[in-house]
Amino acid sequence: MNSDLIEERKKVAFNIEEFTNWYYGGAEKVTEQKFFENYFLNDPELRDNIATSYLSHQELYEESIRKATVVLKKLKHLRNQGYNDKDLYSKILGGTFQKYIFREGNPLSVHFDMFIPAIKNMATLEQQAEWLPKAEICNMIGAYAQTELGHGTFVRGLETTAIFDQRCQQFVINSPTITAYKWWPGGLGHTANYALVFAQLYTQQKNHGVHAFLVQLRDEETHKPLKGITIGEIGTKVGFNSVNNGYLGFKNVRIPLKNMLMKNAKVLPNGQYKKSQSALLNYGTMTYIRVGIVIEAASFMANAATIAMRYSLVRRQSPIEPDQPEPKIIEHVTQQMKIFPVIAKTIIFKQAAEFLWGMFNDVSKELEKGDLSRLPELHALSCCLKAICSNEATQAIEVCRLACGGHGYLTSSGFNNMYKMVTSAQTYEGENTVLLLQTARFLIKSWGQALKGEKLTPTVEYLKHFVSRSGETVAWDGSPNGIIRAFQSATAGKVALAYKHIEERKKFLSPEEAVNQTGIELTKAAELHCQLFLLQSASTSINQAIKKLSPALAFVLRDILELYAVDLAIKSLESLLQFVTATSEDIDRLQVRLEAALKRFRTNAIGIVDGFEISDLVLGSTLGAYDGNVYERLLNEAKKSPLNQEDVNKSFYLYLKPFMKSNL
Amino acid sequence: MNSDLIEERKKVAFNIEEFTNWYYGGAEKVTEQKFFENYFLNDPELRDNIATSYLSHQELYEESIRKATVVLKKLKHLRNQGYNDKDLYSKILGGTFQKYIFREGNPLSVHFDMFIPAIKNMATLEQQAEWLPKAEICNMIGAYAQTELGHGTFVRGLETTAIFDQRCQQFVINSPTITAYKWWPGGLGHTANYALVFAQLYTQQKNHGVHAFLVQLRDEETHKPLKGITIGEIGTKVGFNSVNNGYLGFKNVRIPLKNMLMKNAKVLPNGQYKKSQSALLNYGTMTYIRVGIVIEAASFMANAATIAMRYSLVRRQSPIEPDQPEPKIIEHVTQQMKIFPVIAKTIIFKQAAEFLWGMFNDVSKELEKGDLSRLPELHALSCCLKAICSNEATQAIEVCRLACGGHGYLTSSGFNNMYKMVTSAQTYEGENTVLLLQTARFLIKSWGQALKGEKLTPTVEYLKHFVSRSGETVAWDGSPNGIIRAFQSATAGKVALAYKHIEERKKFLSPEEAVNQTGIELTKAAELHCQLFLLQSASTSINQAIKKLSPALAFVLRDILELYAVDLAIKSLESLLQFVTATSEDIDRLQVRLEAALKRFRTNAIGIVDGFEISDLVLGSTLGAYDGNVYERLLNEAKKSPLNQEDVNKSFYLYLKPFMKSNL
Repeated sequence: MNSDLIEERKKVAFNIEEFTNWYYGGAEKVTEQKFFENYFLNDPELRDNIATSYLSHQELYEESIRKATVVLKKLKHLRNQGYNDKDLYSKILGGTFQKYIFREGNPLSVHFDMFIPAIKNMATLEQQAEWLPKAEICNMIGAYAQTELGHGTFVRGLETTAIFDQRCQQFVINSPTITAYKWWPGGLGHTANYALVFAQLYTQQKNHGVHAFLVQLRDEETHKPLKGITIGEIGTKVGFNSVNNGYLGFKNVRIPLKNMLMKNAKVLPNGQYKKSQSALLNYGTMTYIRVGIVIEAASFMANAATIAMRYSLVRRQSPIEPDQPEPKIIEHVTQQMKIFPVIAKTIIFKQAAEFLWGMFNDVSKELEKGDLSRLPELHALSCCLKAICSNEATQAIEVCRLACGGHGYLTSSGFNNMYKMVTSAQTYEGENTVLLLQTARFLIKSWGQALKGEKLTPTVEYLKHFVSRSGETVAWDGSPNGIIRAFQSATAGKVALAYKHIEERKKFLSPEEAVNQTGIELTKAAELHCQLFLLQSASTSINQAIKKLSPALAFVLRDILELYAVDLAIKSLESLLQFVTATSEDIDRLQVRLEAALKRFRTNAIGIVDGFEISDLVLGSTLGAYDGNVYERLLNEAKKSPLNQEDVNKSFYLYLKPFMKSNL
Repeated sequence: MNSDLIEERKKVAFNIEEFTNWYYGGAEKVTEQKFFENYFLNDPELRDNIATSYLSHQELYEESIRKATVVLKKLKHLRNQGYNDKDLYSKILGGTFQKYIFREGNPLSVHFDMFIPAIKNMATLEQQAEWLPKAEICNMIGAYAQTELGHGTFVRGLETTAIFDQRCQQFVINSPTITAYKWWPGGLGHTANYALVFAQLYTQQKNHGVHAFLVQLRDEETHKPLKGITIGEIGTKVGFNSVNNGYLGFKNVRIPLKNMLMKNAKVLPNGQYKKSQSALLNYGTMTYIRVGIVIEAASFMANAATIAMRYSLVRRQSPIEPDQPEPKIIEHVTQQMKIFPVIAKTIIFKQAAEFLWGMFNDVSKELEKGDLSRLPELHALSCCLKAICSNEATQAIEVCRLACGGHGYLTSSGFNNMYKMVTSAQTYEGENTVLLLQTARFLIKSWGQALKGEKLTPTVEYLKHFVSRSGETVAWDGSPNGIIRAFQSATAGKVALAYKHIEERKKFLSPEEAVNQTGIELTKAAELHCQLFLLQSASTSINQAIKKLSPALAFVLRDILELYAVDLAIKSLESLLQFVTATSEDIDRLQVRLEAALKRFRTNAIGIVDGFEISDLVLGSTLGAYDGNVYERLLNEAKKSPLNQEDVNKSFYLYLKPFMKSNL
């Protein structure tokens, strides 16, 4: 154990376990998580003896298929042992956890995560009875083939066609253009033998929009692609290189009528099309996945902060006092400014996600009763939270990496693996700008309702207070509630401005083009609304929690909230100062508070990251392990490089020596 | 050729060639660049038949050694053919150019880029005569072994020792601890057979600080590591994975007295130490490299903007008007807001770098005459520019990648290769925060001089105007000069505040700790000063250039300047509004100007990126090629994946099929 870390841990002024149990919502959850970590990550068959970054793309895929089958066997074993958790598969294969087993992704996760749930959602009971048993034992491995080479966000624009041939009682599937090729589905390249294919349905010479069809892609015995199927993987990416994202083209591929998923719509044998149920409930799934992204963002940020924090207590660099030894780099205030706000943000994001999670469960219950009234609000919140949290988590990981200097650039630091995953969440499940515009649409609509004196849903109710004061600025008040009011004022101000500009533009443009032209302000308004929600929901839940926690921990959590609020206020001054009147001294005071909050948090910071309780196996970092033996780990990890297994690499004999000699 | 692109190019309202020649400083330079591109990148021996991302780490290294010898042979051939450019090697091996040949770096570049120049700078003429001929024909391949596992920024803290043994007339080199291991030097792992080793010199029981020594590492014939040498590579990184960064430990390695580089200091045979010359001139080299990083940042941004811009004219997504077909994604104003500012920034960075380049040449001439007066100013500028430009270029590349949606995440888009390189420049050659604090130190010193009424150097002269008005805010004025004045006011205001806070803290703390505690404000002041310099120097040079250019091009360049200035002002409101009084309407007007500038630039944007004249070979992007055949290229590139060379991957037989069968 590094002696600096031992010394630092002695200074922590609160009970770390109390924090851990509060943060994860109870000791049982922490125990369960530890059980899973140990059961999976400690299995020699699942540990990387050599980092995946040394493998070729093909080796990486093969290795991940091997591991995927090991994980599935272990899951089955748990079940057989009576481990009785109906969410077991999705717990392990769905969330963040599997990303520690598969640092470049699991080619089988889409099968469990999307293919099987989609069949449950979209197939009739008869279809489910036929397909699910095969799917659950992986005799049928499915991909979710929606996105096309030329079509992503706008699902209605998909080009793949499924034309009903009444004579044969079959659908004929085709990719009429190159842009109609399916592109991106995980596991599609070489893993899946079936796919849910989303295609434009045609019957009786009429287009009925996009529907889902179960299409067999490969022979169940030989795994060879079937006739009419052009299939492969789409090549290397920033990350997720073992997910086996694929492409897929169809040429007159015929499937039986019964392979259309018919829960929500039907084609009858005579070709007649019948819509039975709206697909509104899909909003629920989308929201569920987006809440998951927010939680995952917090989880990756916790990892990044843990690594950077521990390293900053071990690494010594650049004397502050000329005659003193090099200090721990955390003593440089600029270093604190990089890491402490990330720690604070992690906790705030987690709290906000829990809040959203509660709301999601409430709304789901209301939906079951047919009450859709709060769905738009939930949708609007989940959109902006997914966008902002995935974006800020990516930035936070980068800041932590840079805070570790050159060593942060090493794969063995662990940052790059996280970055590759988190940054992809900025694009998938709704591209971030598209999502912010969705939230903005809700805000504009709410503003219109506020203008008319109508009732607003809870998270936008604050807008009402600004309707009569539009254009006026409010005076700055630096109290916690004052900062929240400042954000409310700024968000309302931005929404009002955008609303006004849309109305003005409507005089010359269509409503849609008017909205488009106002897009920059709209995204800004959505960002502010999201920041407000994060601050407000986390404040509420932390202030409530504090009542039940020990004074020492309450003190630290209050500091964290202060640090988060002040840092956010300073970074948002650009927007706040347009709608809030503050003096130069007010701003100077914020800076003083920020510096004071960093100073107070200094000795407790290691306690918080230790309290995140991230095991060394999950972290997978030479710089962040609990014992702080950074330099030994760096060297040991380097020695595992395949290139280091030989004194002289063959390129010396092949190229270098002949070249050196030729010049003599 | 994509028909949308043909149509768009017809709308460009200025002469692209005129822009290109202005941008690169003359038609000859453009022609020369094209000659090199063709000579190197079109050589089948240097083209990647398969993307490097598919290779294993070891294959990647071997392939890069092969390519490096091909490049060197071609360079020699050029020389032999009478190509008479004394900077030929550094042109090809030093700058951005080689990064298009070696997307993961060239293990031999440090030899030419740092090892040989260092010998020229630090070795005596006799030493040069002995070593350079061997180095120039690569019989001696050298690494530059400075950084250690535990020591980077603070060079005086290096631990490797070189103890003079007078009896044998040798130095004994040791790594006394694990943190003393050399770590990071490019080419050190398996390529170099020699290294310049920086070590603490001891003679006559006295430490004389860090000096450089030439140490043989490997046998010249067998390439085996010599006795006492522990050597290898440090493992995979975010990027530069074929640079072969290495580690190196010494155990009683003996080298002759004459292997100490003795131009600036000597050890006599009797062990006496003599310092002969100050190492101040090293500032020159560091500045030179930092100007290079700024130019490279602009060059990568030009690439990123070219890819995102062309793709945005080809890709169609999400109808704006509900009854219309999907528009080119550039029609979404939020998309323009992502890409156009990057195009503008590219041009501004390039101009500022040229300005700095001119200053560097002037100061170099003054240095030769012994006049050091402008060195601190040049150093301060190069520090903050390197930090800000490397940081903003990294962000710009990410913004452009995200603007290309999912496809931007593919390696074949080209973004990830750029990101990996540019982000590393945030850490190497001076970690960015350390550099900003260097600039801040200069600003604080200048402010002190201003308070005393002393003369200031040109780039900080503006501070004088704010000495008497400290604390007051100036009124907002949105004119080009008004924006510059606002930045001057804000920078001076931040410098004054930081100065005041340091003075206050000095009452309780040492001067050094007072500076440390003020670090956050100091970095902010340095950032603002840098933004001011970028805006002001680029404005000056563009406004001058415009006089000699055609009205059509002048119009576009004025737009670019307006776009840059307004965008920068909005993003900097957080700082500006603390020192400048603006109304809510003033800020609203900035937003209107921003939107108007985007709109005016819309049809000319493709002309500017075409005018960057980046060949498809250099771009290496499926999304950004000149012809816009995005989808064909994506599919063709994917088909080259090694996994796609077989219908069924062996992992099916090895793991998947047995697993599927076991469940039946």
